[in-house]
Amino acid sequence: MAKVVVLRMGHRINRDKRVTTHVGLVARAFGADGMIIANVSDASVETSIRKVVKNWGGEFFVESGRPWKTVVEDWRRKGGMVVHLTMYGLPVDEMIDRLRGREILVIVGGEKMPGEIFKIADFNVSVGNQPHSEIAALAIFLDRLFYGSELKKEFKNGKMRIIPTEKGKKVEIRT
Amino acid sequence: MAKVVVLRMGHRINRDKRVTTHVGLVARAFGADGMIIANVSDASVETSIRKVVKNWGGEFFVESGRPWKTVVEDWRRKGGMVVHLTMYGLPVDEMIDRLRGREILVIVGGEKMPGEIFKIADFNVSVGNQPHSEIAALAIFLDRLFYGSELKKEFKNGKMRIIPTEKGKKVEIRT
Repeated sequence: MAKVVVLRMGHRINRDKRVTTHVGLVARAFGADGMIIANVSDASVETSIRKVVKNWGGEFFVESGRPWKTVVEDWRRKGGMVVHLTMYGLPVDEMIDRLRGREILVIVGGEKMPGEIFKIADFNVSVGNQPHSEIAALAIFLDRLFYGSELKKEFKNGKMRIIPTEKGKKVEIRT
Repeated sequence: MAKVVVLRMGHRINRDKRVTTHVGLVARAFGADGMIIANVSDASVETSIRKVVKNWGGEFFVESGRPWKTVVEDWRRKGGMVVHLTMYGLPVDEMIDRLRGREILVIVGGEKMPGEIFKIADFNVSVGNQPHSEIAALAIFLDRLFYGSELKKEFKNGKMRIIPTEKGKKVEIRT
Protein backbone atom coordinates (compact mmCIF):
# COMPACT_ATOMS: atom_id res chain seq x y z
CA MET A 1 0.00 0.00 0.00
CA ALA A 2 1.21 3.47 -0.82
CA LYS A 3 2.26 5.46 2.24
CA VAL A 4 1.01 8.92 1.28
CA VAL A 5 -1.47 9.68 -1.49
CA VAL A 6 -3.03 13.04 -2.34
CA LEU A 7 -6.74 13.23 -3.17
CA ARG A 8 -7.42 16.38 -5.20
CA MET A 9 -11.01 17.61 -4.84
CA GLY A 10 -12.95 20.15 -6.85
CA HIS A 11 -10.93 19.96 -10.07
CA ARG A 12 -12.62 21.80 -12.96
CA ILE A 13 -11.27 20.80 -16.37
CA ASN A 14 -11.40 24.27 -17.89
CA ARG A 15 -10.10 26.32 -15.00
CA ASP A 16 -7.86 24.16 -12.86
CA LYS A 17 -5.42 22.38 -15.15
CA ARG A 18 -2.43 24.41 -14.03
CA VAL A 19 -3.26 24.42 -10.32
CA THR A 20 -4.00 20.68 -10.29
CA THR A 21 -0.79 19.98 -12.20
CA HIS A 22 1.10 21.97 -9.56
CA VAL A 23 -0.63 19.92 -6.83
CA GLY A 24 0.51 16.72 -8.53
CA LEU A 25 4.09 17.88 -9.08
CA VAL A 26 4.36 19.07 -5.48
CA ALA A 27 2.96 15.75 -4.25
CA ARG A 28 5.67 13.95 -6.24
CA ALA A 29 8.56 16.30 -5.44
CA PHE A 30 7.74 16.33 -1.72
CA GLY A 31 7.62 12.59 -1.32
CA ALA A 32 4.01 11.42 -1.81
CA ASP A 33 3.39 8.22 -3.80
CA GLY A 34 0.60 9.43 -6.04
CA MET A 35 -2.31 11.76 -6.72
CA ILE A 36 -5.93 10.91 -7.38
CA ILE A 37 -8.10 13.60 -9.00
CA ALA A 38 -11.60 13.02 -7.60
CA ASN A 39 -14.79 12.72 -9.65
CA VAL A 40 -13.49 14.21 -12.91
CA SER A 41 -11.38 12.50 -15.58
CA ASP A 42 -8.63 14.70 -16.97
CA ALA A 43 -6.26 12.91 -19.32
CA SER A 44 -4.25 16.04 -20.08
CA VAL A 45 -3.26 16.64 -16.44
CA GLU A 46 -2.42 12.94 -16.12
CA THR A 47 -0.22 13.16 -19.22
CA SER A 48 1.64 16.27 -18.01
CA ILE A 49 2.49 14.64 -14.72
CA ARG A 50 3.49 11.31 -16.26
CA LYS A 51 5.81 13.16 -18.60
CA VAL A 52 7.59 14.69 -15.59
CA VAL A 53 7.84 11.26 -13.94
CA LYS A 54 9.32 9.77 -17.12
CA ASN A 55 11.90 12.55 -17.46
CA TRP A 56 12.78 13.10 -13.82
CA GLY A 57 12.35 9.62 -12.35
CA GLY A 58 10.70 7.99 -9.37
CA GLU A 59 7.50 5.98 -9.17
CA PHE A 60 4.71 8.50 -8.74
CA PHE A 61 1.23 7.49 -9.98
CA VAL A 62 -1.67 9.67 -11.09
CA GLU A 63 -5.27 8.75 -11.79
CA SER A 64 -8.52 10.65 -12.20
CA GLY A 65 -12.28 10.17 -12.26
CA ARG A 66 -13.12 7.98 -9.26
CA PRO A 67 -15.77 9.42 -6.92
CA TRP A 68 -14.10 10.80 -3.81
CA LYS A 69 -16.18 8.68 -1.44
CA THR A 70 -15.05 5.47 -3.11
CA VAL A 71 -11.43 6.59 -2.81
CA VAL A 72 -11.85 7.38 0.89
CA GLU A 73 -13.70 4.13 1.61
CA ASP A 74 -11.09 2.04 -0.20
CA TRP A 75 -8.31 3.78 1.70
CA ARG A 76 -9.98 3.20 5.05
CA ARG A 77 -10.67 -0.43 4.28
CA LYS A 78 -6.90 -0.91 3.95
CA GLY A 79 -6.38 0.71 7.35
CA GLY A 80 -5.22 4.12 6.15
CA MET A 81 -5.82 7.46 7.83
CA VAL A 82 -7.55 10.42 6.19
CA VAL A 83 -6.21 13.96 6.67
CA HIS A 84 -7.99 16.99 5.24
CA LEU A 85 -5.92 20.12 4.74
CA THR A 86 -8.09 23.18 5.45
CA MET A 87 -7.51 26.69 6.76
CA TYR A 88 -10.20 25.95 9.37
CA GLY A 89 -8.42 22.98 10.93
CA LEU A 90 -6.00 22.47 13.81
CA PRO A 91 -2.41 23.74 13.35
CA VAL A 92 -0.11 21.38 11.45
CA ASP A 93 2.71 21.88 13.95
CA GLU A 94 0.48 20.61 16.77
CA MET A 95 -0.85 17.65 14.79
CA ILE A 96 2.09 16.35 12.80
CA ASP A 97 3.60 14.08 15.48
CA ARG A 98 0.44 11.97 15.46
CA LEU A 99 0.55 11.56 11.70
CA ARG A 100 4.14 10.56 11.04
CA GLY A 101 4.70 6.96 10.01
CA ARG A 102 1.02 6.42 9.13
CA GLU A 103 -0.53 5.66 5.77
CA ILE A 104 -2.21 8.92 4.88
CA LEU A 105 -4.70 10.02 2.28
CA VAL A 106 -4.21 13.80 2.14
CA ILE A 107 -7.33 15.58 0.89
CA VAL A 108 -6.80 18.99 -0.69
CA GLY A 109 -9.22 21.17 -2.58
CA GLY A 110 -10.29 24.64 -3.45
CA GLU A 111 -12.89 26.84 -1.87
CA LYS A 112 -15.94 24.66 -2.31
CA MET A 113 -15.33 21.54 -0.27
CA PRO A 114 -18.32 19.33 0.63
CA GLY A 115 -19.09 19.81 4.35
CA GLU A 116 -19.06 16.02 4.73
CA ILE A 117 -15.29 15.94 4.23
CA PHE A 118 -14.76 17.78 7.52
CA LYS A 119 -16.65 15.00 9.32
CA ILE A 120 -15.21 12.07 7.43
CA ALA A 121 -11.57 13.14 7.88
CA ASP A 122 -9.72 11.72 10.87
CA PHE A 123 -7.97 15.06 11.17
CA ASN A 124 -8.67 18.51 9.74
CA VAL A 125 -5.28 20.19 9.63
CA SER A 126 -4.44 23.82 8.86
CA VAL A 127 -1.25 25.28 7.44
CA GLY A 128 -1.81 28.71 8.90
CA ASN A 129 -5.36 30.03 9.26
CA GLN A 130 -5.19 32.50 6.41
CA PRO A 131 -6.51 31.92 2.89
CA HIS A 132 -3.66 30.98 0.55
CA SER A 133 -3.16 27.93 -1.65
CA GLU A 134 -3.71 24.19 -1.53
CA ILE A 135 -0.39 23.86 -3.36
CA ALA A 136 1.49 25.65 -0.58
CA ALA A 137 -0.48 23.86 2.14
CA LEU A 138 0.41 20.48 0.65
CA ALA A 139 4.10 21.41 0.33
CA ILE A 140 4.35 22.52 3.95
CA PHE A 141 2.38 19.52 5.20
CA LEU A 142 4.64 17.03 3.43
CA ASP A 143 7.74 18.99 4.43
CA ARG A 144 6.70 18.74 8.10
CA LEU A 145 5.71 15.08 7.73
CA PHE A 146 9.10 14.12 6.31
CA TYR A 147 11.17 16.56 8.43
CA GLY A 148 12.39 18.40 5.34
CA SER A 149 14.29 15.31 4.18
CA GLU A 150 12.10 15.06 1.05
CA LEU A 151 14.09 17.92 -0.51
CA LYS A 152 17.10 15.61 -0.73
CA LYS A 153 15.17 12.62 -2.08
CA GLU A 154 16.78 10.83 -5.04
CA PHE A 155 14.45 9.97 -7.91
CA LYS A 156 15.60 6.83 -9.66
CA ASN A 157 15.58 6.08 -13.38
CA GLY A 158 15.02 9.64 -14.58
CA LYS A 159 16.48 10.89 -17.84
CA MET A 160 17.57 14.18 -16.32
CA ARG A 161 19.14 15.30 -13.10
CA ILE A 162 20.01 18.81 -11.97
CA ILE A 163 23.44 19.60 -10.60
CA PRO A 164 22.76 22.51 -8.22
CA THR A 165 24.80 25.51 -9.22
CA GLU A 166 25.41 29.12 -8.24
CA LYS A 167 24.54 30.74 -11.57
CA GLY A 168 22.79 29.21 -14.57
CA LYS A 169 21.52 25.71 -15.31
CA LYS A 170 23.43 22.46 -15.09
CA VAL A 171 21.52 19.35 -16.11
CA GLU A 172 22.95 15.86 -16.39
CA ILE A 173 21.31 13.93 -19.22
CA ARG A 174 21.43 10.17 -18.72
CA THR A 175 21.67 8.03 -21.79
CA MET B 1 11.57 49.83 3.24
CA ALA B 2 9.67 46.58 3.02
CA LYS B 3 11.63 43.59 4.32
CA VAL B 4 10.55 40.89 1.88
CA VAL B 5 8.82 41.50 -1.45
CA VAL B 6 7.99 38.92 -4.12
CA LEU B 7 8.60 39.72 -7.77
CA ARG B 8 6.39 37.54 -9.95
CA MET B 9 7.84 37.00 -13.46
CA GLY B 10 6.22 35.62 -16.57
CA HIS B 11 2.59 36.31 -15.72
CA ARG B 12 0.26 35.79 -18.69
CA ILE B 13 -3.12 37.45 -18.26
CA ASN B 14 -5.15 34.68 -19.86
CA ARG B 15 -3.43 31.66 -18.39
CA ASP B 16 -1.92 32.59 -15.06
CA LYS B 17 -4.56 34.43 -13.03
CA ARG B 18 -5.09 31.60 -10.59
CA VAL B 19 -1.43 30.67 -10.16
CA THR B 20 -0.37 34.31 -9.73
CA THR B 21 -3.17 34.87 -7.22
CA HIS B 22 -1.90 31.84 -5.28
CA VAL B 23 1.62 33.30 -5.37
CA GLY B 24 0.30 36.57 -3.93
CA LEU B 25 -1.78 34.91 -1.23
CA VAL B 26 1.12 32.71 -0.20
CA ALA B 27 3.44 35.72 -0.09
CA ARG B 28 0.97 37.44 2.25
CA ALA B 29 0.13 34.43 4.43
CA PHE B 30 3.79 33.47 4.83
CA GLY B 31 4.95 36.90 5.95
CA ALA B 32 6.11 38.85 2.88
CA ASP B 33 5.20 42.55 2.64
CA GLY B 34 4.00 42.65 -0.93
CA MET B 35 4.01 41.24 -4.45
CA ILE B 36 4.94 42.98 -7.68
CA ILE B 37 3.77 41.39 -10.95
CA ALA B 38 6.48 42.22 -13.49
CA ASN B 39 5.89 43.74 -16.94
CA VAL B 40 2.16 43.05 -17.22
CA SER B 41 -0.70 45.00 -15.64
CA ASP B 42 -3.45 42.79 -14.24
CA ALA B 43 -6.11 44.67 -12.30
CA SER B 44 -8.18 41.56 -11.65
CA VAL B 45 -5.40 39.73 -9.79
CA GLU B 46 -4.68 42.93 -7.85
CA THR B 47 -8.36 43.19 -6.90
CA SER B 48 -8.60 39.54 -5.76
CA ILE B 49 -5.62 39.93 -3.48
CA ARG B 50 -6.73 43.30 -2.07
CA LYS B 51 -10.09 41.77 -1.25
CA VAL B 52 -8.35 39.11 0.84
CA VAL B 53 -6.26 41.78 2.59
CA LYS B 54 -9.40 43.80 3.37
CA ASN B 55 -11.24 40.78 4.78
CA TRP B 56 -8.39 39.03 6.54
CA GLY B 57 -6.20 41.93 7.65
CA GLY B 58 -2.56 42.93 7.57
CA GLU B 59 -0.78 45.39 5.32
CA PHE B 60 0.18 43.48 2.21
CA PHE B 61 0.59 45.47 -1.02
CA VAL B 62 0.24 44.36 -4.62
CA GLU B 63 1.16 46.14 -7.84
CA SER B 64 1.65 45.16 -11.46
CA GLY B 65 3.09 46.39 -14.73
CA ARG B 66 6.57 47.73 -13.91
CA PRO B 67 9.41 46.23 -15.98
CA TRP B 68 11.31 43.69 -13.92
CA LYS B 69 14.67 45.41 -14.42
CA THR B 70 13.37 48.65 -12.97
CA VAL B 71 12.05 46.79 -9.94
CA VAL B 72 15.39 45.04 -9.40
CA GLU B 73 17.39 48.25 -9.88
CA ASP B 74 15.19 50.21 -7.46
CA TRP B 75 15.52 47.46 -4.88
CA ARG B 76 19.30 47.35 -5.17
CA ARG B 77 19.59 51.13 -4.97
CA LYS B 78 17.96 50.91 -1.53
CA GLY B 79 20.50 48.29 -0.47
CA GLY B 80 18.28 45.22 -0.81
CA MET B 81 19.34 41.72 -1.81
CA VAL B 82 17.93 39.77 -4.75
CA VAL B 83 17.14 36.05 -4.44
CA HIS B 84 15.90 33.99 -7.39
CA LEU B 85 14.03 30.79 -6.60
CA THR B 86 14.87 28.18 -9.22
CA MET B 87 15.12 24.40 -9.34
CA TYR B 88 18.66 24.87 -10.72
CA GLY B 89 19.99 26.83 -7.74
CA LEU B 90 21.79 25.96 -4.51
CA PRO B 91 19.75 24.18 -1.79
CA VAL B 92 17.63 26.48 0.38
CA ASP B 93 18.73 24.71 3.56
CA GLU B 94 22.38 25.52 2.80
CA MET B 95 21.68 29.14 1.85
CA ILE B 96 19.06 30.34 4.27
CA ASP B 97 21.37 31.39 7.14
CA ARG B 98 22.97 34.00 4.91
CA LEU B 99 19.61 35.46 3.94
CA ARG B 100 17.85 35.86 7.27
CA GLY B 101 17.44 39.41 8.51
CA ARG B 102 18.16 40.91 5.08
CA GLU B 103 15.84 42.92 2.85
CA ILE B 104 15.03 40.47 0.10
CA LEU B 105 13.40 40.72 -3.29
CA VAL B 106 12.32 37.13 -4.01
CA ILE B 107 12.02 36.47 -7.74
CA VAL B 108 9.68 33.63 -8.75
CA GLY B 109 8.47 32.64 -12.17
CA GLY B 110 7.39 29.88 -14.44
CA GLU B 111 9.35 27.90 -16.96
CA LYS B 112 10.54 30.70 -19.19
CA MET B 113 12.80 32.87 -17.08
CA PRO B 114 15.20 35.27 -18.86
CA GLY B 115 18.75 33.91 -18.52
CA GLU B 116 19.84 37.31 -17.25
CA ILE B 117 17.98 36.76 -13.98
CA PHE B 118 20.37 33.96 -13.01
CA LYS B 119 23.28 36.42 -13.35
CA ILE B 120 21.63 39.43 -11.76
CA ALA B 121 20.43 37.56 -8.65
CA ASP B 122 22.72 37.61 -5.61
CA PHE B 123 21.64 34.04 -4.94
CA ASN B 124 19.92 31.39 -7.04
CA VAL B 125 18.19 29.17 -4.50
CA SER B 126 16.44 25.84 -5.07
CA VAL B 127 13.66 24.23 -3.06
CA GLY B 128 14.52 20.73 -4.10
CA ASN B 129 15.91 20.09 -7.58
CA GLN B 130 12.77 18.60 -9.06
CA PRO B 131 10.21 20.43 -11.17
CA HIS B 132 7.20 21.41 -9.05
CA SER B 133 5.63 24.81 -8.41
CA GLU B 134 6.70 28.39 -7.76
CA ILE B 135 3.86 28.56 -5.24
CA ALA B 136 5.30 25.70 -3.19
CA ALA B 137 8.87 26.97 -3.59
CA LEU B 138 7.86 30.38 -2.26
CA ALA B 139 5.99 28.87 0.70
CA ILE B 140 8.93 26.71 1.74
CA PHE B 141 11.43 29.54 1.23
CA LEU B 142 9.48 31.94 3.46
CA ASP B 143 8.82 29.18 5.98
CA ARG B 144 12.57 28.55 6.26
CA LEU B 145 13.36 32.28 6.33
CA PHE B 146 10.98 32.90 9.23
CA TYR B 147 11.65 29.59 11.04
CA GLY B 148 7.99 28.54 10.64
CA SER B 149 6.84 31.40 12.89
CA GLU B 150 4.89 32.98 10.01
CA LEU B 151 2.17 30.36 10.48
CA LYS B 152 1.30 31.98 13.80
CA LYS B 153 1.41 35.57 12.53
CA GLU B 154 -1.51 37.79 13.57
CA PHE B 155 -3.06 39.88 10.81
CA LYS B 156 -4.43 43.11 12.23
CA ASN B 157 -7.64 44.90 11.27
CA GLY B 158 -9.23 42.03 9.35
CA LYS B 159 -12.98 41.54 9.27
CA MET B 160 -12.67 37.80 9.77
CA ARG B 161 -10.57 35.50 11.86
CA ILE B 162 -10.59 31.70 11.97
CA ILE B 163 -10.83 29.87 15.28
CA PRO B 164 -8.99 26.59 14.54
CA THR B 165 -11.30 23.67 15.19
CA GLU B 166 -11.38 19.89 15.00
CA LYS B 167 -14.40 19.53 12.68
CA GLY B 168 -16.12 22.20 10.62
CA LYS B 169 -15.60 25.94 10.27
CA LYS B 170 -15.45 28.52 13.02
CA VAL B 171 -15.03 32.10 11.90
CA GLU B 172 -15.11 35.16 14.11
CA ILE B 173 -16.65 38.13 12.31
CA ARG B 174 -15.50 41.46 13.65
CA THR B 175 -17.90 44.34 13.49
